[in-house]
Amino acid sequence: MADLSGLTVGIIAGSGALPRLIAEARAKEGAGYHVVALQDAAGEWIESHPHTAASLGKVGGIMKSLRAAGCDAIVFAGGLARPSLSSLTPDWKGAMLAPRITRLFAQGGDDALLRGIAEIFEEEGFRVLGAHELLEGLLAPEGSIGGLKPSAQDLADIERAAEIVCTLGALDVGQGAVVANNLCLAMEAIEGTDGMLARVAALPKRRRNAAPPPSGVLFKAPKPEQDRRVDLPAIGPDTIKAAKAAGLNGVAVEAGGVFILGLEETAQAADEAGLFLWGRAPEPGA
Amino acid sequence: MADLSGLTVGIIAGSGALPRLIAEARAKEGAGYHVVALQDAAGEWIESHPHTAASLGKVGGIMKSLRAAGCDAIVFAGGLARPSLSSLTPDWKGAMLAPRITRLFAQGGDDALLRGIAEIFEEEGFRVLGAHELLEGLLAPEGSIGGLKPSAQDLADIERAAEIVCTLGALDVGQGAVVANNLCLAMEAIEGTDGMLARVAALPKRRRNAAPPPSGVLFKAPKPEQDRRVDLPAIGPDTIKAAKAAGLNGVAVEAGGVFILGLEETAQAADEAGLFLWGRAPEPGA
Repeated sequence: MADLSGLTVGIIAGSGALPRLIAEARAKEGAGYHVVALQDAAGEWIESHPHTAASLGKVGGIMKSLRAAGCDAIVFAGGLARPSLSSLTPDWKGAMLAPRITRLFAQGGDDALLRGIAEIFEEEGFRVLGAHELLEGLLAPEGSIGGLKPSAQDLADIERAAEIVCTLGALDVGQGAVVANNLCLAMEAIEGTDGMLARVAALPKRRRNAAPPPSGVLFKAPKPEQDRRVDLPAIGPDTIKAAKAAGLNGVAVEAGGVFILGLEETAQAADEAGLFLWGRAPEPGA
Repeated sequence: MADLSGLTVGIIAGSGALPRLIAEARAKEGAGYHVVALQDAAGEWIESHPHTAASLGKVGGIMKSLRAAGCDAIVFAGGLARPSLSSLTPDWKGAMLAPRITRLFAQGGDDALLRGIAEIFEEEGFRVLGAHELLEGLLAPEGSIGGLKPSAQDLADIERAAEIVCTLGALDVGQGAVVANNLCLAMEAIEGTDGMLARVAALPKRRRNAAPPPSGVLFKAPKPEQDRRVDLPAIGPDTIKAAKAAGLNGVAVEAGGVFILGLEETAQAADEAGLFLWGRAPEPGA
């Protein structure tokens, strides 16, 4: 892990635990940072950290806040529902970038959008870091993470789910799928992993005749072309609970490509739920 | 359309309107047919047609009924939730085929399963027809089917949805997707088209910020490798209503590859709902 402690890192914070964990890690090592809390996304935790609130359209304002706080690098962290372009009230800088951002939106995939936005910040002289560079210990390791291991059928389900997720990811769609007894029960589009798992939990019994609970696996992986600096998928204890409620046997993620937010708590939640938690080695060359 | 009126067609009937429409068409032209109603799937309409009730595992019994009714051909029509293998109580013939059917199940995709089952019937001397051969007028034509036309953005959404559905279909998963303003809102796994559209209707507003209703399209197509004799997707007036409730602009299907069950009623439902109904020309060579 490169020494990034000399940088002052602007944390562009969406929802979820990831931006908080980065801020806490920076604070703990006494390294420089400043949180830019995106409107309606970041929670109350920002109050105990140096921060500025920002509106998405005010790109000029965001850059000014970052510079005022002495930031030479930034990290995008946390979730953000894709806004409507018309809801953005741009400042001058935002307006200058509007045609470029409109083009990025039109491509439809989140990866293309985030990568384009990262480029805009790079052109302004900010080094764009990945959350995984600041929190390397949070990336899923290979193999069993909790105490249980996937069965041969579970491993086959993981492979089929990985094929589906990887194929979809190449189209810049989705980061997760549920497969049980070789049958694809659900694919994730914009509803989010929790939404997908709630749907599996609510499937009528006859739809799961061939894969009655408990069976199957949730698999998550980053998109193959994904710029890992801007948006890695994440799971945590709540994901385990949702997978349990969906009648699955376990959860698998691409090792080194998915954050586990609270490794010990998540492994413990898996053990308590009787689920395996598995880090699948990424494809060679991926 | 080849003359199939001389055949006596066994209609292996699942749920939905398709088997009934085939039976009615055969009755109307005075052609031979016999309905084999699969347990818990076919509705009460079978009472007004020559029929036998059958359990899925009793393959020998099904073939005996078909032969007793003088059937020289069969057609698979209608939906059927994939059963659990252990719930099947096979007869002697079914037991003989058990290893082969178990292998087909293990592949996980419906297309592989249905194609394999069609082969079993062919080996027993039955000609396997496609529902589209018996009801050619029900396949979607090209272009506008109702009175409205898709906009340029709608056409772009149709193309992106078609790419997603075609890519998934190659993995023997899904037959539908919803795309709005280039953003994939949902992909269909085993929940069915109605389930997928209900999910889109229930998406929290913030998830559709970038594609507020009305926007977007439902696209359906058969899988690229699909054996068209055994399982073409179908839509009808209810699909239009569900698409309207999901806040979409319209419905598109692969021309010649999707049944429209009640062309006039479906076009009328689209007009009344203010939705377009569009037959997309299949890829050259598809």
